[in-house]
Amino acid sequence: MNKDLYNYILGVADNSLILGQRMGELCGHGPSLETDIACTNISLDLFGQVRSYFQYAADVSGDERTEDDIAFLRREREYKNVLLVEQPNTDFAYTIVRQFLFDVYHVLFLEELKKSSDETLQAIAVKSVKEAKYHERFSSDWVIRLGDGTEESHQKIQDAVDVLWTYTDELFHQTDSDIEMVKAGVAVDVTQLKESYYKKVNEILNEATIQIPESKWFQKGGKQGIHTEHLGYLLSDMQYMQRTYPGMEW
Amino acid sequence: MNKDLYNYILGVADNSLILGQRMGELCGHGPSLETDIACTNISLDLFGQVRSYFQYAADVSGDERTEDDIAFLRREREYKNVLLVEQPNTDFAYTIVRQFLFDVYHVLFLEELKKSSDETLQAIAVKSVKEAKYHERFSSDWVIRLGDGTEESHQKIQDAVDVLWTYTDELFHQTDSDIEMVKAGVAVDVTQLKESYYKKVNEILNEATIQIPESKWFQKGGKQGIHTEHLGYLLSDMQYMQRTYPGMEW
Repeated sequence: MNKDLYNYILGVADNSLILGQRMGELCGHGPSLETDIACTNISLDLFGQVRSYFQYAADVSGDERTEDDIAFLRREREYKNVLLVEQPNTDFAYTIVRQFLFDVYHVLFLEELKKSSDETLQAIAVKSVKEAKYHERFSSDWVIRLGDGTEESHQKIQDAVDVLWTYTDELFHQTDSDIEMVKAGVAVDVTQLKESYYKKVNEILNEATIQIPESKWFQKGGKQGIHTEHLGYLLSDMQYMQRTYPGMEW
Repeated sequence: MNKDLYNYILGVADNSLILGQRMGELCGHGPSLETDIACTNISLDLFGQVRSYFQYAADVSGDERTEDDIAFLRREREYKNVLLVEQPNTDFAYTIVRQFLFDVYHVLFLEELKKSSDETLQAIAVKSVKEAKYHERFSSDWVIRLGDGTEESHQKIQDAVDVLWTYTDELFHQTDSDIEMVKAGVAVDVTQLKESYYKKVNEILNEATIQIPESKWFQKGGKQGIHTEHLGYLLSDMQYMQRTYPGMEW
């Protein structure tokens, strides 16, 4: 199989998988019925994208593995998502800021993936970017509403931005497989998205009256499978059914 | 095998197992180094008791199952612990009040189990009651110190007592196997412990200036395997290693 292509697809899809799982945790626990349903819908959109990516990865693998095996039966070090998306739902501000910091990246990323020389990835991107734009509008609106809201909501958004900011730089890192796939015209060169990303993020944060962190120190490691302590717990929950009932079917 | 004896041992041991797992979650997260170590030691004491019980249960089963199989490879409905011990570490007040409400029961229970006609259970009780008395002293001291402390610490203990109180009555329920084992002189008749239990609990809460809840409505179901939503998450964490690496050995 084309190992670089396989790794590349997983790296892209794992971000949606883990963020979808995090959002899914809020199902039935959102701060209001409307927000609860919106968060659950975002989760479902992301899982839909994940299925397309993993079905393709299963094809590329050329062996018997299925989309479910790829989603549920890997070990922690084999998940390649960025650290940002595995951060917990500490409070609604964290949930929204995490989503916002990912969505801005996600839209820029998918707009480029539409130009991929790989037709399957191209098709997934065309479908997904519409969803990602909706997510971005939703999370940006909330960042502005809460940031420019009461003293308490402002402080909570500021706290979340201060903590999650250190996870943004990793979005623009590349693995060896990423670099190979960029050369082949398949992958998005994420290093080229950085400027547009911070420009857009800063615009929204300014409108939300949120101070942009000055820290130049950033977390990294997720793309290499080195995760924060939060991922293990998330995987314990996510994999429970498949681990407990091996080979289960609905 | 003697199915009633097997069920009885598991019913007793599961309380220590699940409470031990809850306390273990705090390892490295306690409010001070001393308390952190104390909580971890309580956890280890409880796991030590669990091993003795489950080794005995494995013998009684007469088949190939091991203490680890019993501890880690059952499904949620097969765990027979009371609902009290699976309640989460919401804050340190909840942790301490949960421990206190169990410890008072545990000491009374083990003092009676020392008189069991079953020599193995008798021996486990003799060893465990010393540990349980230490736990009871630790948790009672903290209930008093925080209950009769600042306004904030008082309120937190009161809140935890108000919530966890509804789980106390189940300690004195009996399953069919329990009743059979009481008849055989093996089991403790827990219905006989209720008066002493509330007398002791009320004494400590009075000293802690905590108001005793008046509610006469209580939760139940754990002894029949019908658990609160918290147990599934606890089991996902607890079983992850054994589910992910079946048949693993250190």
